[in-house]
Amino acid sequence: MSTPDFARLPGFRDFVPEDLAVRSHVFDTWRRVSGTYGFREYDGPPLEPLDLYVEKSGEEIVSQLYNFTDKGDRAVSMRPEMTPSLARILGERSRGMSKPIRWFSIPQLFRYERQQRGRLREHFQWNVDVVGEADEAADAEVLAVALDALRAFGLTAADIHARVSDRRLLAALLAHFGTDEAQHAAAFGIIDKIERAPREKTLERLSAECGLEAASAARLTALLDDTVGDVAAVRRAFGDDEGVAAALEPVERYLATLDALGLGPFVTFDLTIVRGLAYYTGIVFEVFDRAGELRAVCGGGRYDRLLELVGGEPLPAVGFGMGDVVLGELLAEKGLLPDTTHTTDYFIVTIGDETRAPALGLARRLRDAGHSVTYALRDSSVRKQFKAAENEGAAAVVVLGPDELAKGVAVVRDMRSGGEREVGLDSIGVGVNDGAAGPDAPADGGGSA
Amino acid sequence: MSTPDFARLPGFRDFVPEDLAVRSHVFDTWRRVSGTYGFREYDGPPLEPLDLYVEKSGEEIVSQLYNFTDKGDRAVSMRPEMTPSLARILGERSRGMSKPIRWFSIPQLFRYERQQRGRLREHFQWNVDVVGEADEAADAEVLAVALDALRAFGLTAADIHARVSDRRLLAALLAHFGTDEAQHAAAFGIIDKIERAPREKTLERLSAECGLEAASAARLTALLDDTVGDVAAVRRAFGDDEGVAAALEPVERYLATLDALGLGPFVTFDLTIVRGLAYYTGIVFEVFDRAGELRAVCGGGRYDRLLELVGGEPLPAVGFGMGDVVLGELLAEKGLLPDTTHTTDYFIVTIGDETRAPALGLARRLRDAGHSVTYALRDSSVRKQFKAAENEGAAAVVVLGPDELAKGVAVVRDMRSGGEREVGLDSIGVGVNDGAAGPDAPADGGGSA
Repeated sequence: MSTPDFARLPGFRDFVPEDLAVRSHVFDTWRRVSGTYGFREYDGPPLEPLDLYVEKSGEEIVSQLYNFTDKGDRAVSMRPEMTPSLARILGERSRGMSKPIRWFSIPQLFRYERQQRGRLREHFQWNVDVVGEADEAADAEVLAVALDALRAFGLTAADIHARVSDRRLLAALLAHFGTDEAQHAAAFGIIDKIERAPREKTLERLSAECGLEAASAARLTALLDDTVGDVAAVRRAFGDDEGVAAALEPVERYLATLDALGLGPFVTFDLTIVRGLAYYTGIVFEVFDRAGELRAVCGGGRYDRLLELVGGEPLPAVGFGMGDVVLGELLAEKGLLPDTTHTTDYFIVTIGDETRAPALGLARRLRDAGHSVTYALRDSSVRKQFKAAENEGAAAVVVLGPDELAKGVAVVRDMRSGGEREVGLDSIGVGVNDGAAGPDAPADGGGSA
Repeated sequence: MSTPDFARLPGFRDFVPEDLAVRSHVFDTWRRVSGTYGFREYDGPPLEPLDLYVEKSGEEIVSQLYNFTDKGDRAVSMRPEMTPSLARILGERSRGMSKPIRWFSIPQLFRYERQQRGRLREHFQWNVDVVGEADEAADAEVLAVALDALRAFGLTAADIHARVSDRRLLAALLAHFGTDEAQHAAAFGIIDKIERAPREKTLERLSAECGLEAASAARLTALLDDTVGDVAAVRRAFGDDEGVAAALEPVERYLATLDALGLGPFVTFDLTIVRGLAYYTGIVFEVFDRAGELRAVCGGGRYDRLLELVGGEPLPAVGFGMGDVVLGELLAEKGLLPDTTHTTDYFIVTIGDETRAPALGLARRLRDAGHSVTYALRDSSVRKQFKAAENEGAAAVVVLGPDELAKGVAVVRDMRSGGEREVGLDSIGVGVNDGAAGPDAPADGGGSA
């Protein structure tokens, strides 16, 4: 018999209250910004049939999954991504729904990754999708909501930018340079890795694997470099190619839409963005820190064939995922994490047994009005009770002594200013400036109405 | 090769937006009420070492778990309950923390239960615990927060009540009737099932398994029946027994504390409440619908030895779990589920290409002010756009036509009243009564400041 192992599994996180407060700030911001775009939240099970993932990503994915056989002999997996669940859910019900469907979710996702310097095996990911609309306005809408969330965290265009491309445009350019459509997937793979590969290696692979002549390969890579941030340069150089010209139009409208949404400074056209996953069919994007030090904060694009693949209605779709881990690193680096100091509105100090019941009655009234209230859970000295009030981050301490109680008042101490005054018991927490703010009160410490 | 199976696993739920809205209402209420008591949210991993559960509950539990061997050859399990994770987390860090620790969590939990009429294999459970305080005031605090949440959902003392007992008092009474301490566990088990067993069977088992004489067994069961809602009757009948008298004191103070918190009408003293699980050591409770038609909405109690068991600091603790499923059934039955109709504040209708960019600029400003805004994602007729606005539940439609645009105005239609008026573009959403309420606006439709 082995020794019981109670340690947390490697790659998993505990969220003690300080960490949970950061997570809640992130989730709340994601939800709030999703709401401003009319996206509605959904969720699916964290455990799904294994086939759902194998069908989309192939057998290779199984080595990265938390998969097992359940007690009913079903091959199941903890979800490594959300899109297959979305496709399954919509597959069952999209036919009766008005389009476009604007949904978001914040699932926890699981991958059995090789452990390397703090790499996690779970993370939370904000998933946003527009389903049922092929127009690039839908692509702009999902990038806009991603960027607006990042703005809401306090990030600016000096901190982050979205690198955007369109696989259809890249395909048109590859065709222009003489590749066959059958070689596009290989070319996408090579260009996807272009930043991390020596240039000669890229050129060599483009020739060997995609049939490009050396000069064409060199011209293609130069084009990828030279047009960063400058879609107009593509039109100037290749606008005469009918295929390229047609493929440019949706990209140009997409960029113009983002401009009109006030997000132009956050967007960089960049043909080297491909997104490794095979199922994207059009515009793709990744959001990076400008310094380029972190992995992508967010990535997504158009996947017009996925829903059909898992048995649903053939519907165009575009979406992205934004994980909590890289985002958290970025916010920490920029000093944008929220203050997670624990606070409560009131701590009630009692003096003597007979003040206990009135204290609890006061707590009842204050809590029903939305205030947070704590007090000692056993008899203790006034000094110890004040110490506990400090530990609870109390904005105000209400001292209930027998003499005050007889007069129907209490002494309220504002813990920030240290000022004390007598307040009628019925007036505590009722709009008076007693140092404690209710949940809806303005930040200046006024009570709620 | 088998046919790919994309169906949702049995016993798991999808949450489409209508369902997710109900879930959010439940979670938000749990969080808000937790906050009024100064409880802080935490979370742990949904996957833990199998040993963590076996140590607490014995090998029998494994048959009910979603357990498997991960790719690193670790015996792991999806979490069936939260308390072991809490004990593990506090075991690592409680020594440096000021007590009492007031934490809550809303984990999703997983059990491989035999499938029977809609019985689920996952649910969400609000877990609330006070750790580090042995005084019964802590027991009262956790029951109070549970009852306050149920009140916040709109439930009254006519709908629900908490049935409360204390294992120490029951033990003292069992001792009074002549059982050995070694027989208490067996007696607890029999009394735990008393409502579902024929009375003769109970009496027979009390005699056979706990060594009670037939007359004592009859007196004991009569006592259990007769003292429901009447702890004073226990003191009248057995107050002369020193052990019983001592065990009554914390129960009496507990009930008085709940009274002082204004929750007396929600609380019924009931010695038949035992809670099946072995690790409770004191006061225990279960909240039921008054009609007694549903399973317990919530159950918990004091577990003073659990933290030590998984290697932590020996700390007294009390807590409960409230699941979302039975609660949802109860709220549905009482007509207390929230309205989940989807709404947005504004839908912007554009007429002609040149109004598109100004429309997006207006959307940008309205969203930054916290309003929800949608619009068509492709060119379509005004009629279709109004139809889409209805689908989005828009409170107001802003119509941007070329003529209005030239004048710097738009026509705003209040979708409830049908009234229309011209509004300056810069004034839309700025505190004017245009029919759309911002997220912070009063329900009467005034805009936010």
